[in-house]
Amino acid sequence: MTRALVLFAHGARAASWAAPFERLRDAAQARLPDCRVTLAFLELMEPRLPATVDALVQEGVDDISVVPVFLGQGGHLLRDLPELAAAIRAQYPHLRLQVAGAIGEDPGVQAAMTEYCVRSLG
Amino acid sequence: MTRALVLFAHGARAASWAAPFERLRDAAQARLPDCRVTLAFLELMEPRLPATVDALVQEGVDDISVVPVFLGQGGHLLRDLPELAAAIRAQYPHLRLQVAGAIGEDPGVQAAMTEYCVRSLG
Repeated sequence: MTRALVLFAHGARAASWAAPFERLRDAAQARLPDCRVTLAFLELMEPRLPATVDALVQEGVDDISVVPVFLGQGGHLLRDLPELAAAIRAQYPHLRLQVAGAIGEDPGVQAAMTEYCVRSLG
Repeated sequence: MTRALVLFAHGARAASWAAPFERLRDAAQARLPDCRVTLAFLELMEPRLPATVDALVQEGVDDISVVPVFLGQGGHLLRDLPELAAAIRAQYPHLRLQVAGAIGEDPGVQAAMTEYCVRSLG
């Protein structure tokens, strides 16, 4: 089994927007040396999710975990991502594709965000 | 001095999107009993930032910290929020208004997101 972790983010026009996502990718890759960790975007930035999956499958990956790096679960996670995942599963029926919940819903992330809010008050 | 912490988020069409932001507001409020903690949105959801500040000033608040609950710093934080803050400062010259960096750039939040990514791989 060859695994990959895809950090799925929205994308933006400003290149600077991607910086924390790139740091997250690098930090996760350092913790997961046996797993390919990569970023993919919904819109405005490249690579997009389908092209990312195509490339991973070409590399021999057969197990992909997608983590939505979104704070809340709006239309992008309730509709767009399920549609993308369904198309990928139809194209690659032997690929194992798991989709996690929004990173912003995680209790650990919530706790860290709360700490930041408290500290921001000075 | 009467202080408020405003958690500034993007907004979305799906009401479910706001759930983690509401939990964050409640958790921060529990940690900051002497400070008014409230949510404000850039678009698609109410209340917007200017109306939120108007209401806080009416209540006697004279010191507001804004925490952008955004993962990255794109156009919304590089242009939209500074414009909103400039208009607020022009309208209320005696109000102290501080704007923090994007919550997703915080090292503690980054560490928690990294943990979530590692755990998501199972």
